[in-house]
Amino acid sequence: MSIYHLTPSIRLRRTPFTRRVSNAGVQAYTVYNHMLLASYFRSVEEDYSHLKRAVQIWDVSCERQVELYGPDAAKLLQLTTPRNLEFMHNDQCYYIPMVDESGYMLNDPVAIRLASDRFWVSLADSDMLYYFKGLANGFGLNVHVFEPDISPLAIQGPLAETLISNVFGDKIRTLKFFRHRLIHFQDKEMVIARSGWSHQGGFEIYVEGSGYGEPLWDCLFEAGQSFDVRAGCPNNIERIEAGLLSYGSDITTADTPFEAGLGRYCDLGSATECLATKALLEKQSPNRQIRPIEIHGPPLSSLTRHWPLSDGLGNSVGQVSSSAWSPDLKINVAIGMVGRKSWKEGSQLLVETEEGSREAIVQNSFWT
Amino acid sequence: MSIYHLTPSIRLRRTPFTRRVSNAGVQAYTVYNHMLLASYFRSVEEDYSHLKRAVQIWDVSCERQVELYGPDAAKLLQLTTPRNLEFMHNDQCYYIPMVDESGYMLNDPVAIRLASDRFWVSLADSDMLYYFKGLANGFGLNVHVFEPDISPLAIQGPLAETLISNVFGDKIRTLKFFRHRLIHFQDKEMVIARSGWSHQGGFEIYVEGSGYGEPLWDCLFEAGQSFDVRAGCPNNIERIEAGLLSYGSDITTADTPFEAGLGRYCDLGSATECLATKALLEKQSPNRQIRPIEIHGPPLSSLTRHWPLSDGLGNSVGQVSSSAWSPDLKINVAIGMVGRKSWKEGSQLLVETEEGSREAIVQNSFWT
Repeated sequence: MSIYHLTPSIRLRRTPFTRRVSNAGVQAYTVYNHMLLASYFRSVEEDYSHLKRAVQIWDVSCERQVELYGPDAAKLLQLTTPRNLEFMHNDQCYYIPMVDESGYMLNDPVAIRLASDRFWVSLADSDMLYYFKGLANGFGLNVHVFEPDISPLAIQGPLAETLISNVFGDKIRTLKFFRHRLIHFQDKEMVIARSGWSHQGGFEIYVEGSGYGEPLWDCLFEAGQSFDVRAGCPNNIERIEAGLLSYGSDITTADTPFEAGLGRYCDLGSATECLATKALLEKQSPNRQIRPIEIHGPPLSSLTRHWPLSDGLGNSVGQVSSSAWSPDLKINVAIGMVGRKSWKEGSQLLVETEEGSREAIVQNSFWT
Repeated sequence: MSIYHLTPSIRLRRTPFTRRVSNAGVQAYTVYNHMLLASYFRSVEEDYSHLKRAVQIWDVSCERQVELYGPDAAKLLQLTTPRNLEFMHNDQCYYIPMVDESGYMLNDPVAIRLASDRFWVSLADSDMLYYFKGLANGFGLNVHVFEPDISPLAIQGPLAETLISNVFGDKIRTLKFFRHRLIHFQDKEMVIARSGWSHQGGFEIYVEGSGYGEPLWDCLFEAGQSFDVRAGCPNNIERIEAGLLSYGSDITTADTPFEAGLGRYCDLGSATECLATKALLEKQSPNRQIRPIEIHGPPLSSLTRHWPLSDGLGNSVGQVSSSAWSPDLKINVAIGMVGRKSWKEGSQLLVETEEGSREAIVQNSFWT
């Protein structure tokens, strides 16, 4: 895997867990929402196998929070997303495409409803705080928009439930997917949700108050010793297998939710307060869309630039934005944006990698 | 200097010059506006000495551009800054603090006026595109807000003028500081400004069209051979000596322009359309402010977290956000936010570095 060196600075923010992540032997970082995010510990492959069999603690503080609080909080949130938020419960998390007025993707966060007038938005890699502030000012909305001192810590893997119930009690097992409730740690109430950026199951604790970061980390590691708990991070192989899209890589401001394959989150008949509803009504039949793609041949190194896709007759049909060798599937799993003529299952494509041209085939669905 | 490893990905955008930067021997990067920015080539110290005696070409594509175009472009820009833009000429660049409705810093870009209804904003490290879009939507402004395909390339150093006049003709010598005009490269007109994030003088070319990046880079290197031209990048030592603030390090959303020492850019009597004018009128007498600070003793490594400042009696008085050993001055030059009681010239402070406690002294002005 190709590696650059990264010069530390204050501007690349540390997190409440950075010392622990460093002591746990992080080998490389990425930068996400102006913050350090680990990218692997032992190796991406070894982390992957461990994630699928045990439990990992992930410092995902870089999922920066924006809090919307006040009478117009729900209205402000709805302005930004075509997903209908009207029937969201106070214990629910929603994955929501966020779009500008023309329907182009600005972010794809998880929104957490805490009360009818209070939401957290757990962000992918862009400063949605600025968009919310701009809208709130322009529309004269009665809402506070700010970044609270909250740092998500994810517990992911098949043994996550066992670990969390050992620490916080068996009742946590009844918590449903994308629901949240309160737990107590030391003198503090914190929100825990059954969620996380993997397909292995798990939880995210919204650690409120930076000072609780290290004690909570230590507590989870102590309780998890017998389960082979390790420090981990979002795993590029596992998330491609599961079709978890990376904003900034697979989706950008150049794409609509329909192109991103997120049409099922667009309630255009009911989410009428969304600024983009009208624009999106005309964009429901895109000419290109995200597809899972298998790339043939031996392991490819992960990509640092888009790999062009063609139909083998010299016609450009799209590009690959993520790719990894899957040790379990023994294939190169990839995500790409593919034109309508070539997007159906079984389409044979050519992909230009840094290691030469390879045959590739469009899949019907992601792998897990 | 401490170094992390950085995992490449599509999300950390390459630039039109990345291949050239890589071939020129970049040794470390930072990430700025979701984009790769070189942080040194030979060493920060060697780059520094060279920058002060010769000429360097900097890939500063990460100064992402936002274009505001349309009848309400000037109005939108003025909403975000307390600097009065009314008398800005079509060939002018303005350094402008950008603030939210409460007067807190969102960015400190250079704005370029191209016409009365057309501006570029050359950004520091935050997604101002999102704030502009939010405001434009909320206020219903008649303006296009988008990121054009423009990648700034800086030519910095005492020989910058010689190099640029060799390539584009002697008339360029008449271009004044923070003014811009058009040059021709191949079949393309491009904006060039006398500007750049160093105190050594130089130019920034707003390279329009990614395809022109490598040819222009090559042309400048060929013309600069006899001037010892090298690839470079913003230099942390030189910019601290010169008091060039780094948004995200020295200034954040927690600070006002007055705290940042940018009060001279606040025209509160005339820039009445700025959303923060009223809020800033009440914030003109801050209780803390950015100061140049000399830290005594041998060279300190650069900081990865804030260094607390105290008055020697155990009272916290602020923090250091940038620090470097100056080979020319033979001192540690630093930038810190200092409380009113301790901010006057000559104040003796204690600073807690990773290498222990050091004496420090508040300076009257930056060093160059």
